[in-house]
Amino acid sequence: MQRPVHAFEQTSEQSSEQTLEQAGVRTLAAELPARAGEDVRLAGWIHRRRRLASVTFVVLRDRSGLAQVVVRDPATVERIEEYAEETVVEVTGKAVANPQAPGGVEVGEPAFTPLTDPAPTPPIELWRPAVNAGLPTLLDHAPVTLRHPLLRAPFELAAAAVAGFRETLTGLAFTEIQTPKIVASATESGANVFKLDYFGRPAYLAQSPQFYKQTMVGVFERVFEVGPVFRAEPHDTVRHLAEYVSLDAEFGFVRDHRDVMEVVSSVVGGMLAAVGERAPAALDRLGVELPKLPPRIPELHFADALALVGADPDEPDLAPAHERAIGEWALREHGSDFVFVVGYPMRKRPFYTHPQPDDPRWSNSFDLLFRGVELVTGGQRLHRYADYLAALEAAGQPAEPYATYLETFRYGMPPHGGFAFGLERFVARLVGAENIRQVTLFPRDLHRLAP
Amino acid sequence: MQRPVHAFEQTSEQSSEQTLEQAGVRTLAAELPARAGEDVRLAGWIHRRRRLASVTFVVLRDRSGLAQVVVRDPATVERIEEYAEETVVEVTGKAVANPQAPGGVEVGEPAFTPLTDPAPTPPIELWRPAVNAGLPTLLDHAPVTLRHPLLRAPFELAAAAVAGFRETLTGLAFTEIQTPKIVASATESGANVFKLDYFGRPAYLAQSPQFYKQTMVGVFERVFEVGPVFRAEPHDTVRHLAEYVSLDAEFGFVRDHRDVMEVVSSVVGGMLAAVGERAPAALDRLGVELPKLPPRIPELHFADALALVGADPDEPDLAPAHERAIGEWALREHGSDFVFVVGYPMRKRPFYTHPQPDDPRWSNSFDLLFRGVELVTGGQRLHRYADYLAALEAAGQPAEPYATYLETFRYGMPPHGGFAFGLERFVARLVGAENIRQVTLFPRDLHRLAP
Repeated sequence: MQRPVHAFEQTSEQSSEQTLEQAGVRTLAAELPARAGEDVRLAGWIHRRRRLASVTFVVLRDRSGLAQVVVRDPATVERIEEYAEETVVEVTGKAVANPQAPGGVEVGEPAFTPLTDPAPTPPIELWRPAVNAGLPTLLDHAPVTLRHPLLRAPFELAAAAVAGFRETLTGLAFTEIQTPKIVASATESGANVFKLDYFGRPAYLAQSPQFYKQTMVGVFERVFEVGPVFRAEPHDTVRHLAEYVSLDAEFGFVRDHRDVMEVVSSVVGGMLAAVGERAPAALDRLGVELPKLPPRIPELHFADALALVGADPDEPDLAPAHERAIGEWALREHGSDFVFVVGYPMRKRPFYTHPQPDDPRWSNSFDLLFRGVELVTGGQRLHRYADYLAALEAAGQPAEPYATYLETFRYGMPPHGGFAFGLERFVARLVGAENIRQVTLFPRDLHRLAP
Repeated sequence: MQRPVHAFEQTSEQSSEQTLEQAGVRTLAAELPARAGEDVRLAGWIHRRRRLASVTFVVLRDRSGLAQVVVRDPATVERIEEYAEETVVEVTGKAVANPQAPGGVEVGEPAFTPLTDPAPTPPIELWRPAVNAGLPTLLDHAPVTLRHPLLRAPFELAAAAVAGFRETLTGLAFTEIQTPKIVASATESGANVFKLDYFGRPAYLAQSPQFYKQTMVGVFERVFEVGPVFRAEPHDTVRHLAEYVSLDAEFGFVRDHRDVMEVVSSVVGGMLAAVGERAPAALDRLGVELPKLPPRIPELHFADALALVGADPDEPDLAPAHERAIGEWALREHGSDFVFVVGYPMRKRPFYTHPQPDDPRWSNSFDLLFRGVELVTGGQRLHRYADYLAALEAAGQPAEPYATYLETFRYGMPPHGGFAFGLERFVARLVGAENIRQVTLFPRDLHRLAP
């Protein structure tokens, strides 16, 4: 399923590709090593200028990487003085082998054509290999700071990961859906929901596509969705966002939650493979190694997990320190950066959760921990209409606001389950980001609504 | 890039696939013709029961299609009486060749195991080949009515089309992005925007990712996004939705809008090819033929388009009747269901539109009409900072609310352009839907906020 990143430049017989970059006319920085001895035309941003006594080095940045341009002509050296960093230029010249140049080939005898007015000094020095600015500066000026090769890299990983998510599920005959983000009632949790004015009526932003994806199991059996979800999180932490990209899947005719865990394992494997195949340069730049994913992800029952970490057996949930300890156990005992915790107490799970048949204190649900932090939540759902009515009554909730959702189960639904996780959290754990905002394109939180 | 829809069942050596359906244990309806003489286990919804004097026919529906089950055993015939349409069951039996059965193979000697309680009578008769109910009924009961093979088909086409959109652009080295849907100001048009309470401050739902995708051209050169957009449309028409799925692309280092039109042509071609390859059964069910897309889509300048339809040369836009006439012209003269109209008057285009260099009354922008209705809008954008300041001033708008957006251009942006269109509109034209709500999963409009 892989296509090379620069398929475009390599298949010049296709007409749209010829036109787009008039194949052979624009050379990308990454292609320069193969063009020694040829006339080339590059285009990109002035990444860095370095004026020495007899020569000026210009580093040009384009989507593929960096290219070194060597300027010796005094008039051109003077002109370059005007082209501050981030000015967009075209450069024509000759590709020349030079073992000292990055990639072994540089551009000599250059002529520059500016495509914009000279740029002012950016809020951070984009040419510096390391990023020293604080997160608020980086986020406030994201339109420019994201151009830094290190700061854009997480979003290359995210694009690859989401492609891997879709490909894995498409290969398993799942159908992609897009469900509404404006919803009539704040049903799933009630709290932390954004309210909006919908033609004079109250409406809400969807906290998850949970109800819709279950409904669509009745139509397609197997569905997935990639889309934004919204949480009015009043917490200002390194882990919380008010808007994030949720990767959701749901499917029918399962035996129980174990079938869901199998699909989760395939999906995580497919995402990691896609990252390795599609974004190796970004992994390199970040110095990130792909995590250890054994053929079979280890698992622990929730009760055994509590015992393992020495917690009170009546604890209803795992504390962050417990999750870390379980993550360390999985790595130590099973050589795995991933571990399933299975059977979370019913009282901590949403009303549609399927209980563990032999002991209804526990549920047929699970979390997948990635390096000691919860990544995926999933499980088997109730599927019988009568069970939904009973679960809502037990939760002290009226059935009426759920009328449409319940219609799904009234007319026959197979045993089913699914899972969800945040794309940003996946990338954060992958690159070891301390703050989820580092891997979120234009994050939204308690304080931040722009850019 | 194509994988067969049932790859799952065909590659039983993969562990997750074995588990999911215990390959060979569950047979899909579409696989039945290949299983004559074997014992099979099917699972799905009771689509239809028909009791004759000595035999009852049960049609079972699963995600792959319909299977006929023949019941002769009197006790089983009686039991079947309880399993109303939409009850979910497992059926074991013997696959038997019968030239009269759909697909030539049916299931005999069946044993039924219900997976749900018997379902009540659905709001429409899902087993009837035609759909006679009115749109309000279909939409009110969408969780059930979408199960009808004709009503689910448009969403199979949509899933295929969106996959084709992504594959085409990924093949052209575009990077996928996800940008925020909660934004600080209602900048692009000001009108028709949903307002929400963002932690006590006003915020808005994004009407398009326009500003963000342009910004990201500065980072990745070529980007695309598939995501929801929100329009507080006060019009109750067959064409308007309050929320829809927007397919957006934007890219840099273009010569002008013609490079954008080339990519639009490739994308539309890729989407139609994907629909043909991935969803042939849905096309068949709907009796839809793929539209005529010539190697080169015909085009007309806006001024020539006005002349062609006999409109006043000072008209600022094309009326729906004009668009229809132009669509007929393209089909008649060029054998094309698609036609570009190029150069719309600047005064009708947004402030970031690039003027036509030789005559600034016109713009470097275009619409793509599909069967006489506007499908795609795109064009070249301004890229120089000074041009943005001048354009905002000419439009009588202050620069301050655009501060973040303008930062992008301040620090150097290449000549660039892009396009956008609604997934639902594409599917509506493809299947000839009279009302866009017929091809929208859970539509949102002036009156409708549920299901």
